[in-house]
Amino acid sequence: MTDTQFSPAHGIAFIEGAYMPLAQASVPLTDRGFVRSDATYDVVHVWQGRFFRLDDHIERFEASMRGLRMSLPYSASEIASILMECVRRSGLRDSYVQMTCTRGIPPRGTRDPRLCQNRFYAFAQPFVWIANEEQRRDGLRMVVSSVQRIQPEAVDPRIKNFHWLDLTMGILEAYDHDATVAVLVDRDGNVTEGAGFNVFAVRNGVLATPDRGVFEGMTRRTVIEIAEESGIPCEVRQVSAGELRAADEIFITSTAGGIMPVTALDGHIYGDGKPGALTCRIQDTYWHRQDVGRFCTNVDYRDGAA
Amino acid sequence: MTDTQFSPAHGIAFIEGAYMPLAQASVPLTDRGFVRSDATYDVVHVWQGRFFRLDDHIERFEASMRGLRMSLPYSASEIASILMECVRRSGLRDSYVQMTCTRGIPPRGTRDPRLCQNRFYAFAQPFVWIANEEQRRDGLRMVVSSVQRIQPEAVDPRIKNFHWLDLTMGILEAYDHDATVAVLVDRDGNVTEGAGFNVFAVRNGVLATPDRGVFEGMTRRTVIEIAEESGIPCEVRQVSAGELRAADEIFITSTAGGIMPVTALDGHIYGDGKPGALTCRIQDTYWHRQDVGRFCTNVDYRDGAA
Repeated sequence: MTDTQFSPAHGIAFIEGAYMPLAQASVPLTDRGFVRSDATYDVVHVWQGRFFRLDDHIERFEASMRGLRMSLPYSASEIASILMECVRRSGLRDSYVQMTCTRGIPPRGTRDPRLCQNRFYAFAQPFVWIANEEQRRDGLRMVVSSVQRIQPEAVDPRIKNFHWLDLTMGILEAYDHDATVAVLVDRDGNVTEGAGFNVFAVRNGVLATPDRGVFEGMTRRTVIEIAEESGIPCEVRQVSAGELRAADEIFITSTAGGIMPVTALDGHIYGDGKPGALTCRIQDTYWHRQDVGRFCTNVDYRDGAA
Repeated sequence: MTDTQFSPAHGIAFIEGAYMPLAQASVPLTDRGFVRSDATYDVVHVWQGRFFRLDDHIERFEASMRGLRMSLPYSASEIASILMECVRRSGLRDSYVQMTCTRGIPPRGTRDPRLCQNRFYAFAQPFVWIANEEQRRDGLRMVVSSVQRIQPEAVDPRIKNFHWLDLTMGILEAYDHDATVAVLVDRDGNVTEGAGFNVFAVRNGVLATPDRGVFEGMTRRTVIEIAEESGIPCEVRQVSAGELRAADEIFITSTAGGIMPVTALDGHIYGDGKPGALTCRIQDTYWHRQDVGRFCTNVDYRDGAA
């Protein structure tokens, strides 16, 4: 191992009051956050030195903790400062920033989640796109997975969680079929979401995105706002897999990539294999918002690594 | 922190080729086993210095890994040796022994699970009972949770996994109602399982246990075998919550506790609040099997900590 592994630009973590290289950061083996996936998290991105919707992400993170009956000794502004400091120390201008709360370690000899002291793990690492540059420009190949998404009556998808085995098996299935991403359906064949993204169908100039069984992503929320401001009708409702297949355009939304066009679904090609006009228009508006600093918080890099 | 935290009797872990005190063992923050709960595991217990069904547990662990397209550089007998060594070094005569395989850490800049090197984490720690001694003797109080169990079409419950948020919320709900354990149902109101245990209903001398949406626990398997050898009819089939409520006796099975009677369900008392006769008979047979060493593997403690 060389020192480069611990270069700040490879990521900085904050655990138990201390900042450290991400490659040295770890979770105790007995934390229920690992051995019971008893945890919630949120991800915010930094683009060109600016956080996007930082307060919204922290507010949602706090709501998720309440949903799981967890709490931390940090206020929203203290969490913001910690995330800011992770990015500052990393020197990263573009970064994927994660905040995580785990249940913690049960006192010896017990199994009672209420007796655990909840723990906070945060880190900033280089931005990892869901899709590479070519895919983001030219469009993604997607499959409708044969795996169902975990139902909301079991695990509330609005509480961002690490229960991803269904999504992970979907990714492997996509690769088996020469695609990059998979969207999962519910028991009734309605579209839900994929690994880290929401889905939109466009038909006759109208957007539609699922209302149920999905994580209510921040980029999804931004698209709904953009549609409203731009006079594009957007329906938040049940969307069947059949309706998705019959769409004129399809795109996915994620903090890890923004708005990404899908140009093939189960091998069927959309719009001559090129991203659709409405998708491109929304994509432009999305990045323009960040260029002009809307909902943005500047990172102060002074005395940082870079 | 004192040295006692690192006493071998508090647990020994094996990670990346090295044995260490459990309290010092950790998982990299970026292992998908943590941040995507992309992992499988198995638990075997040691009772009075003997593993119970060690080979069966390792065989199932290997099947789970295949199910998630994971693999390790260890053979079944090498895994057995590692687990044995964890117990030997701990000196524990009664121990909860866990083997875990995680997807591992994605190479920098990628999200592809196939590019990860899968990782192995094992540990032996003091036995932690699902219920305390009084509860095991006198019976547990259970609720039927309002949370549904994750459906098998999303995550195959036969592949032992850490997707426990539904089970954890069930535990918290049980505590809210002055109970100790919760059993979860599926969307159709059929009984599935609880946090680390299977469920049996006894009615007119006949056992019934769910066949679907459940982890096929080793203690459950042992009960089915005991029933067969003892001439007790045992039906493995759909069991509705209503049928469970109408049972003469109820018991749960777990590697972390064996066979445990349930004497109250949603506040309704069974059998004058005392464990039922058939439950006690099966419980006795279960522990007798281990006393006589059936399916047992002795731990060689020579040169160990104790």
